[in-house]
Amino acid sequence: MGDLSNWGRWGADDERGSLNLLTPELVKQAAGLVKTGKVYSLSMPLETNGPQWPLRHRTWKVTVHRGVGKSGSGSADDVVTMHSHSGTHMDALCHYFYDDQIYNGFKASDHITSQGITRNSIDNVPALVGRGVLLDIAAWKGVDNLHLGEGISADDLDQCAAAQGINIQPGDMVLVRTGWMRIFSSDRAQYDSGEPGLDTSTLAWLKAHDIVAIGADNQAVEVLHSIPPDKLPFHEVAIRDLGIYLLENLQLDVLAADKAYEFLLVVAPLRLTNGAGSPINPIVIA
Amino acid sequence: MGDLSNWGRWGADDERGSLNLLTPELVKQAAGLVKTGKVYSLSMPLETNGPQWPLRHRTWKVTVHRGVGKSGSGSADDVVTMHSHSGTHMDALCHYFYDDQIYNGFKASDHITSQGITRNSIDNVPALVGRGVLLDIAAWKGVDNLHLGEGISADDLDQCAAAQGINIQPGDMVLVRTGWMRIFSSDRAQYDSGEPGLDTSTLAWLKAHDIVAIGADNQAVEVLHSIPPDKLPFHEVAIRDLGIYLLENLQLDVLAADKAYEFLLVVAPLRLTNGAGSPINPIVIA
Amino acid sequence: MGDLSNWGRWGADDERGSLNLLTPELVKQAAGLVKTGKVYSLSMPLETNGPQWPLRHRTWKVTVHRGVGKSGSGSADDVVTMHSHSGTHMDALCHYFYDDQIYNGFKASDHITSQGITRNSIDNVPALVGRGVLLDIAAWKGVDNLHLGEGISADDLDQCAAAQGINIQPGDMVLVRTGWMRIFSSDRAQYDSGEPGLDTSTLAWLKAHDIVAIGADNQAVEVLHSIPPDKLPFHEVAIRDLGIYLLENLQLDVLAADKAYEFLLVVAPLRLTNGAGSPINPIVIA
Amino acid sequence: MGDLSNWGRWGADDERGSLNLLTPELVKQAAGLVKTGKVYSLSMPLETNGPQWPLRHRTWKVTVHRGVGKSGSGSADDVVTMHSHSGTHMDALCHYFYDDQIYNGFKASDHITSQGITRNSIDNVPALVGRGVLLDIAAWKGVDNLHLGEGISADDLDQCAAAQGINIQPGDMVLVRTGWMRIFSSDRAQYDSGEPGLDTSTLAWLKAHDIVAIGADNQAVEVLHSIPPDKLPFHEVAIRDLGIYLLENLQLDVLAADKAYEFLLVVAPLRLTNGAGSPINPIVIA
Repeated sequence: MGDLSNWGRWGADDERGSLNLLTPELVKQAAGLVKTGKVYSLSMPLETNGPQWPLRHRTWKVTVHRGVGKSGSGSADDVVTMHSHSGTHMDALCHYFYDDQIYNGFKASDHITSQGITRNSIDNVPALVGRGVLLDIAAWKGVDNLHLGEGISADDLDQCAAAQGINIQPGDMVLVRTGWMRIFSSDRAQYDSGEPGLDTSTLAWLKAHDIVAIGADNQAVEVLHSIPPDKLPFHEVAIRDLGIYLLENLQLDVLAADKAYEFLLVVAPLRLTNGAGSPINPIVIA
Repeated sequence: MGDLSNWGRWGADDERGSLNLLTPELVKQAAGLVKTGKVYSLSMPLETNGPQWPLRHRTWKVTVHRGVGKSGSGSADDVVTMHSHSGTHMDALCHYFYDDQIYNGFKASDHITSQGITRNSIDNVPALVGRGVLLDIAAWKGVDNLHLGEGISADDLDQCAAAQGINIQPGDMVLVRTGWMRIFSSDRAQYDSGEPGLDTSTLAWLKAHDIVAIGADNQAVEVLHSIPPDKLPFHEVAIRDLGIYLLENLQLDVLAADKAYEFLLVVAPLRLTNGAGSPINPIVIA
Repeated sequence: MGDLSNWGRWGADDERGSLNLLTPELVKQAAGLVKTGKVYSLSMPLETNGPQWPLRHRTWKVTVHRGVGKSGSGSADDVVTMHSHSGTHMDALCHYFYDDQIYNGFKASDHITSQGITRNSIDNVPALVGRGVLLDIAAWKGVDNLHLGEGISADDLDQCAAAQGINIQPGDMVLVRTGWMRIFSSDRAQYDSGEPGLDTSTLAWLKAHDIVAIGADNQAVEVLHSIPPDKLPFHEVAIRDLGIYLLENLQLDVLAADKAYEFLLVVAPLRLTNGAGSPINPIVIA
Repeated sequence: MGDLSNWGRWGADDERGSLNLLTPELVKQAAGLVKTGKVYSLSMPLETNGPQWPLRHRTWKVTVHRGVGKSGSGSADDVVTMHSHSGTHMDALCHYFYDDQIYNGFKASDHITSQGITRNSIDNVPALVGRGVLLDIAAWKGVDNLHLGEGISADDLDQCAAAQGINIQPGDMVLVRTGWMRIFSSDRAQYDSGEPGLDTSTLAWLKAHDIVAIGADNQAVEVLHSIPPDKLPFHEVAIRDLGIYLLENLQLDVLAADKAYEFLLVVAPLRLTNGAGSPINPIVIA
C-alpha cells in the first residue's frame, strides 16, 4: 500500500490516531451546522437478535428485579454479557493488525493479553465529535441497496459527494449508506454471508482527505464476498496503518430519508479500560 | 409529595417522560452554546474497580485475540459481563418504582420480567441532547467535597446557580458537583458506605423548573446516610412520579476546573432493548 | 392426576423429594453392582454448539491465559457464561411448577426471585448415588431412534425391562434411551423442534416404583410434538407433584452398545447456592 | 527437579496423564471399599462469596423465571458467569506450564488461544474414579489447622498415613486436610493471603507412589507464603511435568469427623470442550 501510513505523524507514543485531527476549531464549526435541532440515533437495537458478526456470540441480557407485585419500593436492573464489538459498534485502533504490529508500530505481543490491551485501547477515545457527512451511495445509484460483494470505489465516493453537493473536508467523519441494513431485516442469512462496501481504492482517498472515521450500514465497512472472509484488507490499512476509526452496523435510513448530508456527529464509546472497542449509539444533531 | 407527578402529562401511553421537553428548538439553542469547541467526557472508567453500587457485581471484561506474535493478520475483541447500571450510567424510567406501578401508572407486574421490561425501558431514549448546566456546590460552599450524609436543598441549588450567574431554564439537564468522586479515589470504603446528595426538597424544584435530567458525581444523586439505604425517597419521586432521568457516578472535576457552567450536553445510552438502564459516556461540548 | 403427589410424604419442610429414598443401604447395594470397573460419562460436550433448549442462549466460553510463547511460568483459565440448564443437566425441584406452588407446596412467589431460589434449590442435592437402570427402548423396538412425537408408555417401560431381564426396584434411577441423540448430530434443526419421550401414563409408573430420577437422551425427557410446546405436563407432575429429578440431554449410546443395563450411577450437580439446576456429568461404574 | 517427569510414559500423544493409571481393575477394587453406603460431597458452595483465587472474578449467578405469582405453569433457570477454576475445582493438565510447554511437551503457543485449548484440555477427563485416601494432617498434628506458610513434607505424608493405618497404593487419589477451610469461614482476608500446603519434597513422593490426583482444603494444594505468590513450583512440576490432577478448595471436614480414610471417590468435571479446568462436586462413597 506504499505510503498509506500515519505512523509517527502524531509522535512515537501516539495512541489516538485520526482523533488528533479533531481540533476544537473543527468541533466549533461542526456545532455551527446545527440548523433544525433534530436529533437522530444511528444505533441498531442492542439485543440478542441484533446485527452481529456471525462468529461472535449473540448479546445476552437478563433483567433482574425485586418488589414486582408488592407494595413498597422495587427496582430493576439488567445483567448483560456481550462482545465489545456488539451490534452498532466502534473499533479501537488495537482491534485489527498484521505482522504482530498494531497502529503506530506497537508490538501486539507486548500489548495484547487476556487481561486487556495496553496500547491503542478504546479508552484513548473520550469521544469523536465533529462534522459528519452522509454519502448515500444507494440513493446516488438509484437502488434500494447495493448487492452482496459490490465494491464502492474512491471515484464512487467523489461522484456521490458531488451529486449531493458535499465538499469533503479534513477532519470529516464519513458515513456511507449502502442500503444493506434492509437485508438484515429481510434476509438475515444473506446479511451474515457477505456485504457490499468500500474497496481498497478508498484507502488512499481516506488518507488524502484526512478522514477521522468511516462508518457504514454493514458489518465491516469494507466489501466482503463471504463471511468469514479470507482477508480484511481494508481493516488492515485503515485501522493499523492509518489509525482511522471504523463504525459498523450503523442505522442510516432515517438520515437518508431526510437528506441530512452534513451535521454535528457525536460518537461516545464506553470508556472500557484496555478494551478493543465498544458498542456505540452515535448521535446526529442536524 | 402532593402533586409531584407528571403522569398523564404527555398522554396515557407516554414512556419517555421528561424527554418530551427536549424540543428541536431547545436543542438548537443548546448547540448555540458551543463557544470553544472543547470536548469533555463525563464518564469514569468502565472497569472492574470502577464506581459501582456495592450490592452489584463488578464489571467483568476479558480480552480475546488471535494472531498475536504471528505474521499475518490478527484481531482482538472483548467479552464484557456487566450490570446495565455499571459505572457512570443512566436510569431508565422503569428502574425504580413503588406500589407495583412504574412511571405513568403502568403496572410493574405486567411489564417487568426476567425477559426484559416492556414499558419505560431505556430504548425509549434515543438520546438526551440539550442544554447542560453544572452547579458546582462544592466550590460554592468552598470545600473539596461535601461530607457523607450532607444534604443539598432546593435553596442551595438556587443560591449556587445565582452565584455562578446561571439562570435555570425549562428543559435543562442539571449536573450537581459534590466533590464526592475524590472520595472514590482516596477512600473507596467510604464511597461505598453513603454519600452527600440532593434532599427531597429538590423534587419540587425539579418539577417547577421542568428539568429533564439530574446527575451527580455520586452513586445515586440523592443523599444517603448508609448503603444500602432503608429507602431511596428521591428515586421514588424523581423517576417514578416525575419521569426524570438520573445520571450517576459522573466525573465532573474537569468541567468544574474550567468553570464550564452551561454547554451542549449529549447523553447517548446503549439501545438495550427492554433494558432498565445503560452505562453512558456523557459528552459536553463547550 | 389424582393422587400423584409426594407432598408431605417426607415432612412439611422437605426440599429433597425423591432423594429421601436413596438410603445408605441402597447405595451399598448399588456399589455391589460394579463388576468390570468400566467407567462411562453420560455427558454430552458442554460447548456453544452442544444440545440446548432452543429458547436459551448457547453456552459461552472464552479462554484467558498468560505466559504463552514466553519463558517462565504461564497459566490458562476460562470464563464461562451459561444457563444452569445447559447441555446435559439436571432440574432442581424448583425448576418447574404451576399455580404458584413448587414441590411440597411452597409458594413460588415467596421463594423465587432474581437473587435465587430459597426452597428446593439444587444445593439441596449433594449427589444422587444409587442403582441406575438403562431401558433401551430404541433397541427393544428395533429402531435406530424413535421418531419426533413418539410417546413411550408405562407399558413400554415394563415390556422393555422384561425383555432386558431387569426388575425395577424402589430407589432406582431410570435412564431411557430413545436414540434421539443421533438426530442431534445428523439434523440439529429436527432435534430442536420436538422429540420422542415419555407420555403421561408413565407418571403413575414412576410413583408406583418410587423412582428417584428419570433421564433420557433428549431435551426434556417427555414427548414433545413441537418446541416450544404448549405445555409440559410430565414436568408439572414429575417435578412439582412427585419431587422426582429429571436428567436431560444424556449420552446413552456407549452404555447401550455394551448392553450395560444396571450399574452404580453417580450424579453430582454443582453446588450452586439457590440455583434452579446444574449442568452435570453423570458417571456410570459398571 | 531431575527425573520428575512422566512425559512420554503413556505415548507421545497422551493428553490424560495420571488418569492412565486408573485401570478398571483398580476401579473395581475401589468399589469394594464401600462399607456403609454413606455419601459425602466434598464441594464448597459455588456462589459469589465462595472460595476463589483473589485475582479472579467472583462467580456471578442470576435467576430468571416466569409464571411466578400466576396461575398456570411457570419455570426458573439461572444464568451463571464463572471462571472454570471457580470454588471447588479441578485443574486440567493444560492449566499451568512453563517455558511454553505444557504436559507431555506440547507447545503452549501452538495450543492455547482465546478460542480454547487443543491439548490436555479438561474434556480429556471423563471422570476420575478410584480409591480416595484422606490424610488428615491437622488431626495428626493435633491442631485445628496448620498456619499460613506451613509446609507439609513427604515425610509428614508418610507419618500421617502410618498413624492412620493407611497404605498408599499406585492409582490413589490423595486428599490432604490442613484445616485451612475453617479460616475461610472465620477470616476470609487471611484465607486470601496465603496458605499451608504441600512443599516441593512431596513431588518425588507423588511420582514414587504413582498418585493420580492430589487435593486439599486450600486454594492451590501447595504452601503459599503470600497471594499472589512469586512462583507456584509445585504446580509447575505436578501438573506440567508429572501430569497429575490437582483438586482445590475441597471441603474435607465431615470426612475427617467420620475418620473416613479410604473410600470410593468419583470426580466428574463438566465436559467443557477445550477448557482449562472445571468446577467439581467430588463425591465420596464410604
